Amino acid sequence: MGVDIGGTKVAAGLVDHEGEIREQRRTPMVANQDAAAGLAAVVSAIDSLLQHAPGAKSSIGGIGICAPGPLDPYTGLVINPPNLPCWRGFPLAAEISRIYRVPVKVDNDANAAALAEVRWGAGRGYSKVFYATIGTGIGTGIVFDGAIYHGRTGAAGEGGHMSIDYRGPRCGCGKPGCIEVLASGPAIARRARARLSESGGASLLRDLAGGEINAVTTEMVGRAYAAGDALATQVLEEIVELLTVWLSNIVDLLEPDIMIVGGGVAKMLSGFFARIRNRLPQVCVNPRPQEIPLVLARYEAEAGIAGGAALCWNN
Amino acid sequence: MGVDIGGTKVAAGLVDHEGEIREQRRTPMVANQDAAAGLAAVVSAIDSLLQHAPGAKSSIGGIGICAPGPLDPYTGLVINPPNLPCWRGFPLAAEISRIYRVPVKVDNDANAAALAEVRWGAGRGYSKVFYATIGTGIGTGIVFDGAIYHGRTGAAGEGGHMSIDYRGPRCGCGKPGCIEVLASGPAIARRARARLSESGGASLLRDLAGGEINAVTTEMVGRAYAAGDALATQVLEEIVELLTVWLSNIVDLLEPDIMIVGGGVAKMLSGFFARIRNRLPQVCVNPRPQEIPLVLARYEAEAGIAGGAALCWNN
Repeated sequence: MGVDIGGTKVAAGLVDHEGEIREQRRTPMVANQDAAAGLAAVVSAIDSLLQHAPGAKSSIGGIGICAPGPLDPYTGLVINPPNLPCWRGFPLAAEISRIYRVPVKVDNDANAAALAEVRWGAGRGYSKVFYATIGTGIGTGIVFDGAIYHGRTGAAGEGGHMSIDYRGPRCGCGKPGCIEVLASGPAIARRARARLSESGGASLLRDLAGGEINAVTTEMVGRAYAAGDALATQVLEEIVELLTVWLSNIVDLLEPDIMIVGGGVAKMLSGFFARIRNRLPQVCVNPRPQEIPLVLARYEAEAGIAGGAALCWNN
Repeated sequence: MGVDIGGTKVAAGLVDHEGEIREQRRTPMVANQDAAAGLAAVVSAIDSLLQHAPGAKSSIGGIGICAPGPLDPYTGLVINPPNLPCWRGFPLAAEISRIYRVPVKVDNDANAAALAEVRWGAGRGYSKVFYATIGTGIGTGIVFDGAIYHGRTGAAGEGGHMSIDYRGPRCGCGKPGCIEVLASGPAIARRARARLSESGGASLLRDLAGGEINAVTTEMVGRAYAAGDALATQVLEEIVELLTVWLSNIVDLLEPDIMIVGGGVAKMLSGFFARIRNRLPQVCVNPRPQEIPLVLARYEAEAGIAGGAALCWNN
């Protein structure tokens, strides 16, 4: 079973040995009350799933949980996530394991999603895998030889907080010019609004937003680009150049066997993947970066459920 | 035995099981003639060392060679280093092994030096080690569980070519704003010259350079800083801030157990190491980056010899 805990919802799903999600339930998360209420919300999601799938309870090999960080994947302790104020130093894995009497693993969503891609998705058969999910933020995960690379305390793999602009806008993490601040979904919308303000010219984007520049969303940029709008295309080309420099840093440091990109923004950008690969040789010291596959993730909205389940299959 | 091949010299040394360099010889490299002449220069260095250390020949367990990249550490093939035009697709490990009838390993200098630090130096006892050497360039090496992390084809660990400034000056690798272009030895001298030109005021640096701004060297900046010169201090503080952002990227992606810095510029900057560690929490998403030791390397000019030998001890 994979469980994906966010600030407002819990998704729980049953995942088979091919990585197919057989059943799933989404229920509200109670993040801003006490620890017990938060736990009860997760238990409610799991129970709802189990009630809906008779016989599942006996066939579950483990429960893997994606939760917002910081957390300790080695012990399953949730430390103090800004999005889950109910839990500070909360032994989530131990509590869930006590209730359901199965092994429980906890990890952050990008690490878990990376593992799901290696186990069941685009990363199958690769030994050094870099995964990124681009959406509201940019999360990343590194998988070496089938295991998540966790670093010293479990906090490694935060590639979204690598800066490519030391003089750039400051991220919530404190660093200037993190790729998350420059190229995540909200950054795309911000950049589109700025370009619209500057240009004053016609753009489908202006129409989609009903003439209200501030109403422009990331999704509108994607629609305008798909329809061939010049301004939206320019915005995405700028974002792609930033992502190229960022990925070139990853290639020169880690030279992975494959790079996998998921998340809400990934599909919008997938038409640029070939361009990114072709440009990498110009901005890498690596002699053959264009040989590294750059591909879309298998999992989209269900990456958290699949990721959670992958944490269990791994053990 | 460790052998360090550069564009102009070959250094060969005998290294004992404590990492002490017992004997060493430096001879000229012949880099711009044919492959055989290049090989003969390396053989000459090895023979000179062996002649000077009677009995050594029988006690050598292997020969480890540091050479400029790109090269293939898996096969010991030198691909096409700009500094060694004599060798293109040259099977260096096989040739040396044929002559001396011992195992031979070839790797790039920063990778090998990183391994020497883990085996005998500042990295002993650590499982996830990030090493950087700051000099004419910035080279880096990653060692996980006592083994160099090589990546897909052996070209990983080029952290000196990670950009922190996508709008910055272009590096030889093609990427804008690599840390090597911004913070290596030559970058320090360049920055000092620029600050001197701007300020027009008094500075010990001006005196050291005999009034010739263009004569300012990295080493002079170090001397002026050691003597308390304000302008030299400012220049190094700017460099240190760049290195801090770069190291914060490494911490957020890899969260190593220790970061080791060597090379000609490292000592000059070592007085800033505590400041860098104290600043990391402000620019990392990692919750406890200040706990990661940031230390000087054991090996200085002899890093290549020790590194070469470490390649052999590893096997």
